[in-house]
Amino acid sequence: MKLSIRKDQLNEAIQQVSKASSSRPAIPILGGIKFDVTHQGVTLTASDTDISIQSFIPVENGEFVIARIEKPGSVVLPAKFFVEIVKKLPSDEIEIEVKENHQTWIRSGSTDIQMVGLDPEEFPVLPTVEETETINVPGDLLRSMIRQTVFAASTSEQTPILTGALWSLEDGLLKFVATDRHRLASRSAAVTAPADYRFTNVVISSKTLNELSKLVPDDSTPIDIIVADNQVLFKIGHVLFYSRILDGTYPDTSKIIPQQFKTELVVHTKNLTDAIDRAYLMSREEKTNVVRLVTQEDGTIEISSSSTELGRVTEQLESKEQNGEQLRIAFNSKYMLDTLKVIDSEYMYIGFNGAMSPIIVKPTDHAHSLHIILPYRTTG
Amino acid sequence: MKLSIRKDQLNEAIQQVSKASSSRPAIPILGGIKFDVTHQGVTLTASDTDISIQSFIPVENGEFVIARIEKPGSVVLPAKFFVEIVKKLPSDEIEIEVKENHQTWIRSGSTDIQMVGLDPEEFPVLPTVEETETINVPGDLLRSMIRQTVFAASTSEQTPILTGALWSLEDGLLKFVATDRHRLASRSAAVTAPADYRFTNVVISSKTLNELSKLVPDDSTPIDIIVADNQVLFKIGHVLFYSRILDGTYPDTSKIIPQQFKTELVVHTKNLTDAIDRAYLMSREEKTNVVRLVTQEDGTIEISSSSTELGRVTEQLESKEQNGEQLRIAFNSKYMLDTLKVIDSEYMYIGFNGAMSPIIVKPTDHAHSLHIILPYRTTG
Repeated sequence: MKLSIRKDQLNEAIQQVSKASSSRPAIPILGGIKFDVTHQGVTLTASDTDISIQSFIPVENGEFVIARIEKPGSVVLPAKFFVEIVKKLPSDEIEIEVKENHQTWIRSGSTDIQMVGLDPEEFPVLPTVEETETINVPGDLLRSMIRQTVFAASTSEQTPILTGALWSLEDGLLKFVATDRHRLASRSAAVTAPADYRFTNVVISSKTLNELSKLVPDDSTPIDIIVADNQVLFKIGHVLFYSRILDGTYPDTSKIIPQQFKTELVVHTKNLTDAIDRAYLMSREEKTNVVRLVTQEDGTIEISSSSTELGRVTEQLESKEQNGEQLRIAFNSKYMLDTLKVIDSEYMYIGFNGAMSPIIVKPTDHAHSLHIILPYRTTG
Repeated sequence: MKLSIRKDQLNEAIQQVSKASSSRPAIPILGGIKFDVTHQGVTLTASDTDISIQSFIPVENGEFVIARIEKPGSVVLPAKFFVEIVKKLPSDEIEIEVKENHQTWIRSGSTDIQMVGLDPEEFPVLPTVEETETINVPGDLLRSMIRQTVFAASTSEQTPILTGALWSLEDGLLKFVATDRHRLASRSAAVTAPADYRFTNVVISSKTLNELSKLVPDDSTPIDIIVADNQVLFKIGHVLFYSRILDGTYPDTSKIIPQQFKTELVVHTKNLTDAIDRAYLMSREEKTNVVRLVTQEDGTIEISSSSTELGRVTEQLESKEQNGEQLRIAFNSKYMLDTLKVIDSEYMYIGFNGAMSPIIVKPTDHAHSLHIILPYRTTG
């Protein structure tokens, strides 16, 4: 294997795939990036047990030559050192040559690097994904859907299935749900999908979704998604992103969503966020993050929190609408703030069924998001 | 005590003094900020055992009114919560009122905060510093002198005196020295000082100097420095910064600085920095950070490092001047990089006395900086 390649293009592809290389690999080969060089271009692959990322660098992009291939071949190079050294090389052009025993020479300007390469035959084989049905989502929508749900996933490995987000598709509507049993976030959107195509119980690790999000452009670039038996493949331009589907059955959350409410509020999203943020600072001192919300006869809302050592914060807030019974309820201010941060409309709706029942939070601009927060059961 | 005050000015003063409040105070009062309100303005004070910071907010600044004092008085408020809540208050104006038992009410727009205040009589008294002799240094110079020395101070509490920087003044020349026994950094500058005024063995914690640096403007603002028996006082506009002087005698480092060299190099600072930075990435894998420098007959320099698992980096570098014996030496690449980052001239000088003797590094533009790095004693 021998080639010369432009530093910026190589660096970009390496940064893309390196997210999938293990930082503490069980065996050295899993901490590597595989190079496959043909006369068409260079394919880089990295893989741990959960995700695999592949990026293709063509020899030219129409405007200019990116790589000159002298001899095709393959090698695996240790990712951690390679990721850092490439961007620091002195010349815009990098020569890579693999000699006997996978020994690799890298030359750039006045820098000569000799690297211990690994056998590409030992590198894990990428999952096979049969491309039968494909759904298609614009990049910015996919990023929003991920951002608006994964924060509610569990971080506890005691319930592995809840560390992921549940994806389902029905009637062209893609839906994401995440919950840690204390709160739930859901988001749906109409996507381009084959007629009658549907799936359910596709659960993807929220850590993986955060990594995926970083590789997805925040614009209308179309992202192809292919769901196979135990893998999901995302096609992002020249990048292929494979994620394992988590084992297990995701709990049915549809039944806990109330359809009627005893108290309903419509409030200004930013004003409520700021008020709860200040109450949160005080509630945090007591570790429990408890904040109280009390509706007033005059249509305003009082938000408060207290700490025996520090004191008490009390906030008065106008509501745009207030219907139903007067209410006094306590909840986790951190959970509410997480939710408020992803509500993308100027005013928001909150529905209650008394102090002991789930709180429902929704934007007022559209019906594609729904959040649930369980209240604290406190006295007084 | 009762007043109303502009949020931005109060916030600025609180951010300045809060650096001196303990985040984990031994007694609650040390985690507080003291307010002293008179008809002239508001004085804020925070203090831990090492540093005390005081900031004064006048009632007006000539252009506009900053504070309206209704009733003078004093109180101590818990710093951590107060620092965070102030900037988040909804109105540009904040009312503060202290009632019985130091109970403090803070009002801003629709926010009402009741805080448990502490007794100002229990707050530590500021050190007394007699203002006999004062030296004066421009802010940007003081920041440079700190930045160019403290990185070389020890981080080990086994030798407390070496965790500080040694300050001395003689013939109007202020000098800073820091060393951890493996490397040394020194920087001197002519400053405004009374004739015949001199001091030595003034050792200030490098942590304290880093905090001080953040409060010093990066421009020609004059900073007054007053050295007392066991305290140094810095006057930065409306801010007073008191630092304890470390106990103990700083070792005499003047004798370890060689005056003659067997090998001398002048090299381009940035080119050497980049080459050692790449070699460092490889050397880091071996934990020891060893990099080798070898002079060549043709006047170039070879920089190299190797790791048994990863391979080898070799760099060729032009030298602008090369005098004396040929040399082969090994040193800690991290220490050399730390030094190179603070060398403020395009070309730098390096002097050697063989593979076993201290390496001297200096800028070529001026004679106010001197760095020493001890070599590694390796074979081959």
